[in-house]
Amino acid sequence: MAQPTSSTLTFPAPSATLLSPYLPSTSSHNRPFLTLTYATSLDATLSLTPTTPTLLSGPLSKSMTHYLRAHHAAILIGAGTAIADDPSLNSRLEGAEIDRQPRPVVLDPRGRWAVGGGSKVVSLARQGRGLGPWVMVMEGVDVDGEKVRVVEGVGGAYVTLSTNEDGRFDWKDVLDVLWKEGVTSVMVEGGGVVINELLSPRYFGLVDAVIVTIAPVWLGREGVQVCPEERRDGEGKKVAVGRLRDVRWVPLGEDGVLCGRPKMDE
Amino acid sequence: MAQPTSSTLTFPAPSATLLSPYLPSTSSHNRPFLTLTYATSLDATLSLTPTTPTLLSGPLSKSMTHYLRAHHAAILIGAGTAIADDPSLNSRLEGAEIDRQPRPVVLDPRGRWAVGGGSKVVSLARQGRGLGPWVMVMEGVDVDGEKVRVVEGVGGAYVTLSTNEDGRFDWKDVLDVLWKEGVTSVMVEGGGVVINELLSPRYFGLVDAVIVTIAPVWLGREGVQVCPEERRDGEGKKVAVGRLRDVRWVPLGEDGVLCGRPKMDE
Ligand SMILES: NC(=O)c1ccc[n+]([C@@H]2O[C@H](COP(=O)([O-])OP(=O)(O)OC[C@H]3O[C@@H](n4cnc5c(N)ncnc54)[C@H](OP(=O)(O)O)[C@@H]3O)[C@@H](O)[C@H]2O)c1
Ligand SMILES: NC(=O)c1ccc[n+]([C@@H]2O[C@H](COP(=O)([O-])OP(=O)(O)OC[C@H]3O[C@@H](n4cnc5c(N)ncnc54)[C@H](OP(=O)(O)O)[C@@H]3O)[C@@H](O)[C@H]2O)c1
Repeated sequence: MAQPTSSTLTFPAPSATLLSPYLPSTSSHNRPFLTLTYATSLDATLSLTPTTPTLLSGPLSKSMTHYLRAHHAAILIGAGTAIADDPSLNSRLEGAEIDRQPRPVVLDPRGRWAVGGGSKVVSLARQGRGLGPWVMVMEGVDVDGEKVRVVEGVGGAYVTLSTNEDGRFDWKDVLDVLWKEGVTSVMVEGGGVVINELLSPRYFGLVDAVIVTIAPVWLGREGVQVCPEERRDGEGKKVAVGRLRDVRWVPLGEDGVLCGRPKMDE
Repeated sequence: MAQPTSSTLTFPAPSATLLSPYLPSTSSHNRPFLTLTYATSLDATLSLTPTTPTLLSGPLSKSMTHYLRAHHAAILIGAGTAIADDPSLNSRLEGAEIDRQPRPVVLDPRGRWAVGGGSKVVSLARQGRGLGPWVMVMEGVDVDGEKVRVVEGVGGAYVTLSTNEDGRFDWKDVLDVLWKEGVTSVMVEGGGVVINELLSPRYFGLVDAVIVTIAPVWLGREGVQVCPEERRDGEGKKVAVGRLRDVRWVPLGEDGVLCGRPKMDE
């Protein structure tokens, strides 16, 4: 059993109560419950540049992330985030033993992520403080044998998936793979490409809950932005891309956390 | 005295109490107290297109706008907003008689705004439900005589101001003119050009309070966005453009309202 470390986090009970209606519930649709969660600035920016890890939100929001991670069976990110951030993708919530740790999942169709013994995910899995990652690659990609060995060595796996014409996985296929492996809930954490894709009309219906943290800062142009493709109605008129219902705002330190569910009636 | 109309609005006292620390206070700096306020989507967009008035926020946020307007001596917008929205720029707050009405101010350096008898601002001023607008134009611009007559006919004025090399007014000059005319507070409502300018390091220090309303919707690309020019430190590294201090989040119906003051120590 992993010992609590000095970096163990707690999330205040009153805030947890406010979030509870948005936590994964038993899925009635034969796919994992999907929570889309991310933190932005007031100008909807996720990071200053694609390769600059940017601390946006405050300590309470960080605790919330680790609280949410402990309530999901998997955490999913895109290759861009895996490469830029070398993220931990575990939960440091107090009491989150190995049986509460989420499965890290990385969408890395071309096998770009240079995962190795020094990667945080691998090192945490070795310490029994996280699970080995599942890396989703496209069919026919030749993944370096050393990477496969490292990933499998910590209980992870490279998983092959077919892509569409754009070299992209269909999100239904991604969720299918997870569901078949017994994953009942997944927290999608970013980055920009992944978030904008899930907010598009094609995939928004796969999202069960959205939790957005907004920090009181403006990052300025040329960052990684949350800004999905525009959408037009039958007459070609520009309309909103997506809305939330069952909305709740939870102030968390200096940040504002917005919880909601996709509104699908438009 | 104007009679209350069916469209008179009230703002709930508990919400008003939460906003009160951010309302204009006596200015100690020989210029009007400046409140920057706007409403965006989750993707930091002010409107679907520059010419599409976009209802973003809910009814309570609308009441808040009218509450704030009644607490400022002037409301300022850019020519783009005046042209696209034909805004009322008055306060429909219950009890906001003519002596509580803010002065509409439009930055229209090239005299583009086709103000006339049909413009809402003019029509409201004629009904005694708002004040005549002050339109700031650059020196040497030849404003159509009919527009001047209409504006002056409702107690407004065309005011001439010098511009810099870019054909832009310096915000210190704009505030100077207002201060000299006895305006002690101004609420800047947008749109995109105006907001991004005030968030730039050059002008952020002129802002006394910021009140941002965020609606639970994504509008998608190619809208009018809040996204100030990027900022770099001495070593050329990209850094945050601006931060807020004394932050408070006020949930208002489905919207989240963020109040704060510019943090100038960076
Ligand atoms: N503030 C936050 O909450 C937060 C959270 C996470 C990340 N971030 C930031 O976001 C930035 C990274 O974002 P990003 O937009 O560059 O990258 P990203 O979204 O993390 O990853 C994008 C890449 O993932 C792969 N991918 C995504 N969707 C896919 C699909 N449906 N099928 C197949 N592959 C798919 C593609 O890889 P290929 O290019 O190889 O095809 C794609 O280019 C970093 O700066 C990070 O710090 C911020
Ligand atoms: N959601 C909200 O809270 C909100 C609020 C207001 C407006 N809006 C939306 O925003 C859109 C309009 O925004 P916008 O960016 O197009 O226009 P805008 O900011 O309203 O106006 C920009 C114009 O104002 C003049 N201007 C601004 N700053 C100036 C300065 N320092 N000196 C001299 N002139 C200055 C310039 O006129 P010239 O071009 O003639 O030089 C400039 O192009 C509309 O769609 C409106 O609905 C939304």
